[in-house]
Amino acid sequence: MNVNVSQEIIDKASVLVEALPYIQRFNGKIIVVKYGGSAMADPELKASIIEDIVLLKLVGMKPVIVHGGGKEITKWMKKTGTETEFYNGLRITDKDTLDVAEMVLAKVNKELVSMAELLGVKAIGISGKDGNLLTVKKVMPDGKDIGYVGEVTDVDPSIIEKILDDDMLPVIYPIGKDENGIGYNINGDHAASAVAKALKASKLAFLTDTDGVYLDPDDRSTLISELYVSEARELIENGNVNGGMIPKIRNCINAIENGVDRVHILDGRILHCLLLEIFTNKGIGTAIINDDAEKFYKEQA
Amino acid sequence: MNVNVSQEIIDKASVLVEALPYIQRFNGKIIVVKYGGSAMADPELKASIIEDIVLLKLVGMKPVIVHGGGKEITKWMKKTGTETEFYNGLRITDKDTLDVAEMVLAKVNKELVSMAELLGVKAIGISGKDGNLLTVKKVMPDGKDIGYVGEVTDVDPSIIEKILDDDMLPVIYPIGKDENGIGYNINGDHAASAVAKALKASKLAFLTDTDGVYLDPDDRSTLISELYVSEARELIENGNVNGGMIPKIRNCINAIENGVDRVHILDGRILHCLLLEIFTNKGIGTAIINDDAEKFYKEQA
Amino acid sequence: MNVNVSQEIIDKASVLVEALPYIQRFNGKIIVVKYGGSAMADPELKASIIEDIVLLKLVGMKPVIVHGGGKEITKWMKKTGTETEFYNGLRITDKDTLDVAEMVLAKVNKELVSMAELLGVKAIGISGKDGNLLTVKKVMPDGKDIGYVGEVTDVDPSIIEKILDDDMLPVIYPIGKDENGIGYNINGDHAASAVAKALKASKLAFLTDTDGVYLDPDDRSTLISELYVSEARELIENGNVNGGMIPKIRNCINAIENGVDRVHILDGRILHCLLLEIFTNKGIGTAIINDDAEKFYKEQA
Amino acid sequence: MNVNVSQEIIDKASVLVEALPYIQRFNGKIIVVKYGGSAMADPELKASIIEDIVLLKLVGMKPVIVHGGGKEITKWMKKTGTETEFYNGLRITDKDTLDVAEMVLAKVNKELVSMAELLGVKAIGISGKDGNLLTVKKVMPDGKDIGYVGEVTDVDPSIIEKILDDDMLPVIYPIGKDENGIGYNINGDHAASAVAKALKASKLAFLTDTDGVYLDPDDRSTLISELYVSEARELIENGNVNGGMIPKIRNCINAIENGVDRVHILDGRILHCLLLEIFTNKGIGTAIINDDAEKFYKEQA
Amino acid sequence: MNVNVSQEIIDKASVLVEALPYIQRFNGKIIVVKYGGSAMADPELKASIIEDIVLLKLVGMKPVIVHGGGKEITKWMKKTGTETEFYNGLRITDKDTLDVAEMVLAKVNKELVSMAELLGVKAIGISGKDGNLLTVKKVMPDGKDIGYVGEVTDVDPSIIEKILDDDMLPVIYPIGKDENGIGYNINGDHAASAVAKALKASKLAFLTDTDGVYLDPDDRSTLISELYVSEARELIENGNVNGGMIPKIRNCINAIENGVDRVHILDGRILHCLLLEIFTNKGIGTAIINDDAEKFYKEQA
Amino acid sequence: MNVNVSQEIIDKASVLVEALPYIQRFNGKIIVVKYGGSAMADPELKASIIEDIVLLKLVGMKPVIVHGGGKEITKWMKKTGTETEFYNGLRITDKDTLDVAEMVLAKVNKELVSMAELLGVKAIGISGKDGNLLTVKKVMPDGKDIGYVGEVTDVDPSIIEKILDDDMLPVIYPIGKDENGIGYNINGDHAASAVAKALKASKLAFLTDTDGVYLDPDDRSTLISELYVSEARELIENGNVNGGMIPKIRNCINAIENGVDRVHILDGRILHCLLLEIFTNKGIGTAIINDDAEKFYKEQA
Repeated sequence: MNVNVSQEIIDKASVLVEALPYIQRFNGKIIVVKYGGSAMADPELKASIIEDIVLLKLVGMKPVIVHGGGKEITKWMKKTGTETEFYNGLRITDKDTLDVAEMVLAKVNKELVSMAELLGVKAIGISGKDGNLLTVKKVMPDGKDIGYVGEVTDVDPSIIEKILDDDMLPVIYPIGKDENGIGYNINGDHAASAVAKALKASKLAFLTDTDGVYLDPDDRSTLISELYVSEARELIENGNVNGGMIPKIRNCINAIENGVDRVHILDGRILHCLLLEIFTNKGIGTAIINDDAEKFYKEQA
Repeated sequence: MNVNVSQEIIDKASVLVEALPYIQRFNGKIIVVKYGGSAMADPELKASIIEDIVLLKLVGMKPVIVHGGGKEITKWMKKTGTETEFYNGLRITDKDTLDVAEMVLAKVNKELVSMAELLGVKAIGISGKDGNLLTVKKVMPDGKDIGYVGEVTDVDPSIIEKILDDDMLPVIYPIGKDENGIGYNINGDHAASAVAKALKASKLAFLTDTDGVYLDPDDRSTLISELYVSEARELIENGNVNGGMIPKIRNCINAIENGVDRVHILDGRILHCLLLEIFTNKGIGTAIINDDAEKFYKEQA
Repeated sequence: MNVNVSQEIIDKASVLVEALPYIQRFNGKIIVVKYGGSAMADPELKASIIEDIVLLKLVGMKPVIVHGGGKEITKWMKKTGTETEFYNGLRITDKDTLDVAEMVLAKVNKELVSMAELLGVKAIGISGKDGNLLTVKKVMPDGKDIGYVGEVTDVDPSIIEKILDDDMLPVIYPIGKDENGIGYNINGDHAASAVAKALKASKLAFLTDTDGVYLDPDDRSTLISELYVSEARELIENGNVNGGMIPKIRNCINAIENGVDRVHILDGRILHCLLLEIFTNKGIGTAIINDDAEKFYKEQA
Repeated sequence: MNVNVSQEIIDKASVLVEALPYIQRFNGKIIVVKYGGSAMADPELKASIIEDIVLLKLVGMKPVIVHGGGKEITKWMKKTGTETEFYNGLRITDKDTLDVAEMVLAKVNKELVSMAELLGVKAIGISGKDGNLLTVKKVMPDGKDIGYVGEVTDVDPSIIEKILDDDMLPVIYPIGKDENGIGYNINGDHAASAVAKALKASKLAFLTDTDGVYLDPDDRSTLISELYVSEARELIENGNVNGGMIPKIRNCINAIENGVDRVHILDGRILHCLLLEIFTNKGIGTAIINDDAEKFYKEQA
Repeated sequence: MNVNVSQEIIDKASVLVEALPYIQRFNGKIIVVKYGGSAMADPELKASIIEDIVLLKLVGMKPVIVHGGGKEITKWMKKTGTETEFYNGLRITDKDTLDVAEMVLAKVNKELVSMAELLGVKAIGISGKDGNLLTVKKVMPDGKDIGYVGEVTDVDPSIIEKILDDDMLPVIYPIGKDENGIGYNINGDHAASAVAKALKASKLAFLTDTDGVYLDPDDRSTLISELYVSEARELIENGNVNGGMIPKIRNCINAIENGVDRVHILDGRILHCLLLEIFTNKGIGTAIINDDAEKFYKEQA
Repeated sequence: MNVNVSQEIIDKASVLVEALPYIQRFNGKIIVVKYGGSAMADPELKASIIEDIVLLKLVGMKPVIVHGGGKEITKWMKKTGTETEFYNGLRITDKDTLDVAEMVLAKVNKELVSMAELLGVKAIGISGKDGNLLTVKKVMPDGKDIGYVGEVTDVDPSIIEKILDDDMLPVIYPIGKDENGIGYNINGDHAASAVAKALKASKLAFLTDTDGVYLDPDDRSTLISELYVSEARELIENGNVNGGMIPKIRNCINAIENGVDRVHILDGRILHCLLLEIFTNKGIGTAIINDDAEKFYKEQA
C-alpha cells in the first residue's frame, strides 16, 4: 500500500492540512487590518500584504483595511511647501496640513484598491466621511488647540457591513468629520480600533515595525506569542514593555474590552506575515486575547 | 362651500400639484448629474445643487453625481509647483499632474459627500478605480503621447447599482485605471456619459456655464427647451450652434444613442436649476431627446 | 456669476425646497385620512383630495383612506323609502337602513377607487368586513337597542399592511362585523382612528367642515396650528372649544394616546388642504401632538 | 393479522384515499368558481358552496370566486322604484339600474366574505374596478345603446395574484370600468371566464341550475361527464344540446382555447357539488377539456 | 330546489366535509409517525401506511417517519450467523449485531423511501448519524455493559427542518452516534419521541399491535379515545393498564411534557389507520393530550 | 528593512500563496469525488481523504462524495453465505447479492458521514434511491440476464443541490431504482460520472489504485499531468494506455463531453492526494480536460 512521494509533497500537504482548522474557525469572521509604517514603503511587502488580504477574503474571511499614508504625506508636505509645527510632540494640523494629508491618503487608498482589484476582488476605498462612518470631535490636549485633529466619538458601521455583504473589500483611510461636516485627521491605530469595535470584529491586526512583544527585549527568543489582557496589563505595570509598545498595547486592550476577540501585533516587514500568523500553529507575532478565551492555538515560540 | 384662502396658499398648492406628474414619472429612475464649472466655485450654488440632488433622492429618484475639480486643481498645481504643458490645446498629464488631479478630486469628492450627509442621506464617494467602475485606455491624439489621459473602454456599473440598492448616494470622480492598474485622468463629461449609458439612466444632466441651446445665440428668447436628436444633428450641421456647445451636444447625442432617455443641458448658475428643470412644466434648460420619444412636457419658452 | 431668472421661477424653487424636509421626514410613513362631509359633495374638492392622496403616495408616504357616504346615503334612503327613527339624536339603524348604508358606501368606495386609478395608482376598496379588518360589538346607549350600530373592539391590520406592501392604496368604508359575522355600521371618525391606531400610523388627518381649532372662535386670526395633547385637554376643560369640535378633539387625543404621532384637523373645503398642511411650514389646520413631541414645524398662523 | 373494523370505517378510509390523487394533482392550482343562480337563494346551498371553497383552499388549491347578485337585484330594483326596459331581451341599464346593481352586488359580496371568514380563511371582496382588474368597453348590440353594459377588453390579474400570494380568498363581483373610469355592468359568466383566462387558471367551474350536459336531455342516464372541445362543438352543430346550454358551452370552449385546462358545468343545487366533482372519480357534472388532454379521471356515468 | 342524488354521493360529501376542520387545523403542522411491528410485515398494510403519510403531506401537514426493522433484522441475524445473548431480557448488542441491525434498517429505509416516491413525493432516508441528528451515550443498565445500545442525549433537528423546508419526506432509522462518532442502536419509540420533542411536533403517532388503551382490556367497548396526561398517570397508578402498554404510555407522557401537543396510540393493523385517526370525528385509537388542552374532537367510542 | 525569518516560515508562506489562485478559481465550484479501491482499506488514507474533502468544503468548494464498498462487500457476502456467480467476468447479482451490497454500502456510507461530522461539517448520506436521484434500467449484456445490475438513465440532481444549498456534504452510494421502484446495483465510476454530469460539476476526481496515466508505463518519469480529450483518444487508439485504464479514461472523456470541465485520475494511496492535486502547481495525478480549455496550471512532471 505504500507509495513513494517526495518530501516536498509531504511538506506541502502538511502545510495545507495545518491551515485547515484556522480556515474553518475564521470562516465568515471579520478581520480589521491596520496597515501602515515601513510595510508601506517596500513594494514587495506591499504586494505581499495585499495578496494576503485577498487570500483571507478568498477563503471566506471578511477583511477590512484601515491604512495610513506612510512617507507619502511628508513628501507632499514638502512639495506643497506646507510647514508643520509641533506641540509636545504632536503635529499641529492646520487647514493646509489637513488638506494635504487627506489628499495623499486618498491617493494611497486608490493604489491599494487598484492592487487588490488586479488580484481579482472588488475593492471600494472610502474615508471616514463616507456613509457617516466616523464621527469625530476636536482633540484639545491640555486644552491646547492643535488644529484639525479629531478623535472618534461615533462609528456607523452600516456602510462597511453593506460593502462586506456585497462581497467587496473595504479600504478605509482615517479622515472623519464632526457633526457640522468639518473634516479632521484621526490617528490610524485608533481609527482601526474604533472600526473593529463597531463591527464586533473577530480579529484586529496591527502591522508594525516591530516583531511583537518580548519578555526580554534584548533576547529575541522571548517573543510572546499569546498574552491574556491581564498579563498584558501586568507587563506594562512592571515596566517590562518598552515605551513605543505601550500605547499600542493599551489600544489592543481597549479593543478587546469592547468586543474584539483577539488583537495581533505583527511585524509588517515579514513577507506574508498575515497568512503566517493566522494559518500556522506557531504564528509569528503576539496575540493579545480576552482573559475568558482559551490560548488555543499557539505554543510559546 | 367657498373658503377664502390667500393667493400665496393657492400658488403653493399649484406648484406642488404641478410637480406631481414628474415625481410620479421619474420615481425609481436613475439620473446622472455631471457637476462642474462655475457652479462649483460659488458656495450658495454648490449648496443648492446638493440640496436639489438630495431632494431628487428623497422623492424616489436615484441620483448619481459625477464631478470635476473646478478651480481647485489649478490652485494645487500652483501650490505643488507642478508645471503643465500643452499639445494642441490638450493638457499633457505627467505623473505629478495626475497625482495632483487625483488628490484634489478626492478632496472635492469628500466635501460633496459631507454636504449631502449633513442633509440626511448617506453618500459614498468613489473614483472610477473602485469596484472596477471605469476601465480606460491611454489616449494618443495624432499618435502623440500626452501622458496619463485615458478614455473609457469599459464600465462595470455593479458597484453603483449596489450603492443605489443600499439606498445611498454615489458621488464619483473621473479617475480610472487600465488593465494593469495604472491610473488615468478622464474627461468628466465623458465619464458621466459612460456611467449614464452603463446604468441605462433615465436622465443625464450637465450643469454648464451656459443656459442652454439657442436658435439664435444673440436672442435669449430663442432658448430651445426640447430638441430631438435629429434636430440637434441638423443644428450642428447648419452651423447654428456655437463652438463650445458642439462637443457637449455630440456627447448628449451619443448618450441617447446608447440608451439614456433624455439629456439635459442646464445653467448651473441658476439656483435649484435641477428642481426647476425636472419638476416644472417649462423647465429652464435644453433637453435633448430620442426621436422616438414624445416631447411631452415642455412648451417652447 | 449672477444669472437673471424671473421671480416666478425663484418662487417655484422655494416652494419645492420648502417641501423637502417634510417629504424626507414622512417618507415611508403611514397617514390615515378620514374623508367625509362637505368635501365629498363638491366634485372639484373631491378631485383635489384624491389628487393630494395620490401625490402623498407618489412621494413615498403610505396613505390609507377611510371614508363616509356623505349625502348619498340620505338620497338612497329616500329612494328606497327607508324611514329613519332617532333615539336621543342617534339614528336607529334597522336592517334596511344598514343595507342601504352599506350599499351606498360600497358605491362611493368604488368611485374613489376609480378616481385614484385614473391618476395612475392601483387602489383597492374594502370594507371593515374584508380580511377581518374591523370586528365590532353592538352599541347599546343607555341600554337602548338602536339596531345595527357597532363599535370597534378589534382591528386586524394585516390586510391593510399587505395592501401597502403591495404598493396599492387602501380605501376603506366603515362597515364591520361581529364575531358571528353580523354586519354593523360604525362611526367613520372612530373607524379611522381605530385603523390608525392599529397601523401605528404616523399621521391621522380628519377632513372636516371647519378650518381648525380657534382660541377665539370669533377671531379667525386665532387659529391654533399646533397643540399639545395636554393643551387640548385644557381647552376642553376651560370650555374654550365649541361643542361640535369636542368629540373630534377627544377622538384625536385618544388616537395619540394609542400610538399615532400627530392628528390633523383640516378644512376639507380648501383645495389641496392635505398637501398644504403636510408640505408647507405654516400648514393650514390644527395639529394635535404628543406632549413628548416637539412642535417642530409650524409657527402660529 | 386481521382486525375487525366496521364497514363505515372502511368506507370513510376509501373516500379519503379516493380523494388523494386529486388533492395531489390540484395542489397550488387556481380554480375560478362562477357562483350564481338558484344556488344563491337557498341558505343551506350557499353555506355548502362556501364550505367547499374554503376546503379547496385548505387542501392547497387557490380558489377565486366570481359571483352574481341573484334575486337580490330584482328585489332592490323594486324597492328603489327603478324600472327596467328591455331591448330584444337585453336589459337596458341606465345609471340608476347600474347603481342599484353595483350596490346590491357589493352587499352580496360582503355576505360571502363574512361567511368565508367565519370558516377561518381571510377573504377580500373586490369589484372589477379595484386594482384595474377589469377594463371594459360599452356593448352596442346592433348599434343600439343599451346603457351601462360593458364587455371585458382587458384584465389586470395582478391584484388577484397578490391576494392569492397573501393566502387570502378573492371574492369578485362583475362591475368594471372603461378607460375614463366610467362603471359598467358585466355578464357574470363572461367576467369569470375572463378572470380565469388571465390567471391561466387550471379550472373554471360554473355553478348552474342544470346538472350538466346530456346526450339525450330526456334521459338522465346520458349525462356526459367528460367532453373534448371538439366533441362539444359537434354536439352544438348537431343540435344535440338545448338552447340555454349553448352560450354556456361556447363560453367554456372559449376559456379552454385561452389557456384554462378544464371547465366544469355543475349543478349548483347539489350540496357540496364542488367537492364531489373535484375529489371523486365519477364527478357529478360535465367537464369540458382540451383535445390534447387526457380524459384522465372520470368514466361515463 | 330539491335535486335527487344518491345516498353514496351524500355519504362521500359528508366524509370530505367531516375531514375539513382537521385538514384546516393541522395545516403546516409536523407529525412524527413511529412505524414498526406487525404493520411492517403485511405488504397491504405497509402500502396503506405509506399512502396515508403521503396524503398527510399532500394536504399540507409535514409528516416525519421513524421506523424499525421488523422481522427483517432477525432474518439477517440468522443469515449472518450472528448469535444474540440477553441480559435481563435486554439484547446484548455486540459490534456484529449492531452492524447487521444498521444494515437491515438501511435496507428497510430505502424500501420505504422507494414506496413513497412511487406515490409522487420526494423522500430522503437518513439515520440518526446524518447531519448530527441523534447524539447518544452508551446505556449501562445496572452498570452492566450490554454493548452498542445508546440513549439519545441530544437532537439536532436542523437536518429534518431543512428536508421539510425543501418539501421532502424524511424517513429516519434509529441508529445514532456518540461524541466520538461511535455508532449505537437506539430504541425506536424513544428515537421517535426524541425527534418529535426536538421538532416541537404537533403530533406523535405510534403504530402498534394493539388497538389503543382500554378501561377494561376484556371489554372492547371500553376503548378510550382521548385521555388527559393526568388521567393516563392515574390509569397506570391504579393498575388499569396492562404491562406492555405501560412503557409506551410513559413515553407518550414524556413527549407531551416536552412540547408535543398530542400523542396517538394506533392499531397499525387497521388499513389507513392514520387517516381515520386524524381526519374523522371518532378516530380509531387513543390520543393522550396535555391537561391544558381541550378534548376537542372525539367522543368516547 | 530586511527581517530574518527561518526557511521553514518562508516555505510555509510559499505553499499558502501557491494555493491562492486555485482557492480563488474553484470557489463555489462543485467537485464530485469517486472514492473506492485500496484507499478505503487503509484507515490513515481514509482519514486523509475525508480531511481533504472537508478542507475543500471549508475553503468554499462544494464537494460531493460517491463511494463504493471496498472489501467490506466481499466480507459480508461470505458472512451471509451468499454465493456469487460470474458471466463473462460480470458478477451476477441476484436479490440476495443486491441486498448484501446495498446494506454494506449503507454501513460504509454512515462511517464516512460520521468521520466528516467529527471534523465539523454536516454530512448527509443517501443512496441513489433517495429523492429520485438515480433512475436506472436493467443491464442485459449480450441479452444475458445478470440480475439486479442497472445503468443510469436519468439523474434528478435537485436533492444534491438542496443539500449543497443547505451547506451540507452529500455522501452517495450507487444503488438506484427503476421506474417501478425496483432497486439495482450501479457501477460506482458510472454513478459518479452521471452525478457530475447532472450537476454540471467543475471537477470529477477518481481516486484509483494507480498514480495516473503514463506515456510509458514502465517509466515513472512519463506521468502525464494534463491531457486534452483528443490526446486521450489518441493514446487509446495507439494502444499507449494499458488495459485497466481504458474504461476509466473512456468514462472521463464521456464526462467532459457532457459538461464537466476537468476529470482527475489520482492515486488514492497518496496521503492528501486531493489537496495536492487541486492546490499545487504540479499536481500529482493526471487531469483530462476539454480541448477548448487551456492547460493552465500544470507543467509536465
